[in-house]
Amino acid sequence: MPQFVTDLPTPCLVLEKSKLESNIERMAERIAHLGGALRPHVKTHKSIDVANKVIAGGFVKGITVSTLREAEYFFERGISDIMYAVGVSPNKLKRVRELMVAGCDLKIVLDNKRMAEIVAKEGEAHRVEYNVLIELDTDGHRSGVNPESDELINIGSTLAQSTGAKLVGVMTHAGESYGCQTPEALLEISQRERDLSVLAAERLRGLGIECQMVSIGSTPTALSVDNLNGVTEVRAGVYVFFDLVMAGVGVCDPDDVAVSVLSSIIGYQEDKGWAITDGGWMALSRDRGTSNQFEDYGYGKVVGAHGESIGDLAVIGANQEHGIVGSRIGNSPLNLNNLPIGGLVRVLPNHACATAGQYDKYYLVDGDRVLATWPRVNGW
Amino acid sequence: MPQFVTDLPTPCLVLEKSKLESNIERMAERIAHLGGALRPHVKTHKSIDVANKVIAGGFVKGITVSTLREAEYFFERGISDIMYAVGVSPNKLKRVRELMVAGCDLKIVLDNKRMAEIVAKEGEAHRVEYNVLIELDTDGHRSGVNPESDELINIGSTLAQSTGAKLVGVMTHAGESYGCQTPEALLEISQRERDLSVLAAERLRGLGIECQMVSIGSTPTALSVDNLNGVTEVRAGVYVFFDLVMAGVGVCDPDDVAVSVLSSIIGYQEDKGWAITDGGWMALSRDRGTSNQFEDYGYGKVVGAHGESIGDLAVIGANQEHGIVGSRIGNSPLNLNNLPIGGLVRVLPNHACATAGQYDKYYLVDGDRVLATWPRVNGW
Repeated sequence: MPQFVTDLPTPCLVLEKSKLESNIERMAERIAHLGGALRPHVKTHKSIDVANKVIAGGFVKGITVSTLREAEYFFERGISDIMYAVGVSPNKLKRVRELMVAGCDLKIVLDNKRMAEIVAKEGEAHRVEYNVLIELDTDGHRSGVNPESDELINIGSTLAQSTGAKLVGVMTHAGESYGCQTPEALLEISQRERDLSVLAAERLRGLGIECQMVSIGSTPTALSVDNLNGVTEVRAGVYVFFDLVMAGVGVCDPDDVAVSVLSSIIGYQEDKGWAITDGGWMALSRDRGTSNQFEDYGYGKVVGAHGESIGDLAVIGANQEHGIVGSRIGNSPLNLNNLPIGGLVRVLPNHACATAGQYDKYYLVDGDRVLATWPRVNGW
Repeated sequence: MPQFVTDLPTPCLVLEKSKLESNIERMAERIAHLGGALRPHVKTHKSIDVANKVIAGGFVKGITVSTLREAEYFFERGISDIMYAVGVSPNKLKRVRELMVAGCDLKIVLDNKRMAEIVAKEGEAHRVEYNVLIELDTDGHRSGVNPESDELINIGSTLAQSTGAKLVGVMTHAGESYGCQTPEALLEISQRERDLSVLAAERLRGLGIECQMVSIGSTPTALSVDNLNGVTEVRAGVYVFFDLVMAGVGVCDPDDVAVSVLSSIIGYQEDKGWAITDGGWMALSRDRGTSNQFEDYGYGKVVGAHGESIGDLAVIGANQEHGIVGSRIGNSPLNLNNLPIGGLVRVLPNHACATAGQYDKYYLVDGDRVLATWPRVNGW
């Protein structure tokens, strides 16, 4: 393993131990203050080493995954209370069953009566009782059933009448919070996420349908909600690394971002004010999440090899394996002293989930030193 | 291995054998007609199985790679004439050397005198002669030295004077061709790519500096250039799969696209005219390459499970593991009969390189049947 940051291959994914730890601590303190419990989403990091740090941080009652591959990986490594938080499809039920039979307390989600019927029937046929949460739509963001709809009750009744599935709760994700840019907007969306979830649970309970869990969350709403009355757990993921989109939302500072892409300077186009790196969109991802925010960082904010500021630089363009570094301020000339041919820079990501998804491992670093390589699990 | 397309897990990457073969045949015929030779870029597919089909198609004199990991993978599998077509960095020279010592005829590229000095010095120190191509900028797209500049001669002289590096040619990639939308614009950029490359080679030769290779290409220019006088080889990659961006450029039809993402329908938002799938941006990539084209397909064009048309549908929005399928024509209601809960769709990619980069394998299919799984090599 390389000993120093300057020995690392490029492009590679670097994880700052101290920033990771302080981000984890911040969320744990927040959840403790609210008197809640955390079910951290592992889709950002997909690493047992990061998950173990989050669990050690406290207030964790299980994890959330975005793929069955993650569920299998984390269960094999000792974590058994898992919510698979993407609406299930029929072709995944066999793998879900296999995990349950092996002892995994796996919970699945769905948002419509037809899928509830499919799951219930499959459970009956295989004498398994699937643990189901109903996904709620509390912000019009993507999937989920309206918490005030008849369909919610239809789904609950379908599950309650079957021996093949068991309703264990309701869950939602206020993804629209990623579009907020003021504390007031964040507070409002977090309150709506909470209130509509509690309402849905109470509507089901009012009809005699058990609904134990009320699971809400996203990094912005978890850091904004004023109380967790009626909520049993909070899901959040990207806060462990943070990223430029979260900085734009206002819940962190670019300096809190724990993960970055180390790249080499391979050339210049001096007349254009460009330095060219070996970190293109394959290394950074195609995510342009800051493009609609007040601060647009192109494909990422460029800092020095050890995280130090070297001017207001960004990756202003990217091809598959080429990054174009330029000034964010018009066409100001680059200070090429900070960008020597063959030298190194780090790029802070727009969206940590997307950028980390391009790699199979992290290099954990502390200052100049490389401490460890931590593998990731990708795919489905 | 699953026997039928309908048995495949979702999301997954599906490769249509018949389309792959006809795309390969089309380019081989084109190169034969022009009397040229092909150095196909493997960065799109990163698969030895696809590479072997391309080689079997004929007129191939070596391959082009975008990472040293690709170089290692393909060399281990019997391909030894390899151009690493991204400007090299000092921290990669050891791996380049190891490949050369093992018998790989590996060529590297650079575009500035400083990097030429670094490479020459490293070669001298290790008694290795690196094979170097000078990268030319023929369209202002990203990297490369101006073919008419003094710097070109400075680089050539630096290399010619060293025993640690050998100039083997010039190369360029007219990436701006991806922005063309008419045959006239494509012809013009392809002629400039050719003419300026030949000019650079002749300037070097005129000074007594040997310059054997003149390597040009991209899928659009390879399919547009009118002759290859003075050119020794053509590089192109994405044509093996094609994609919606190439359809927008006008060099293929969406029906030629050989690769697609199979996804399951997990829910509806009927009032919005949305169907929700398990194919989000992790499955499709964040590439929005058609956003500036005449036909904007969102995150991809949606067709039936066997490639059949089911209306003018696209993935109009995407989260990490959720795709939002909607009509491309305003807010027209979806025909949900074509999109049953739990049913399958295929999504044709905007950019095949980016989408395929999200997977570790292809499922090769022929109609309903799954023929094979073909692994990919990712990372650096």
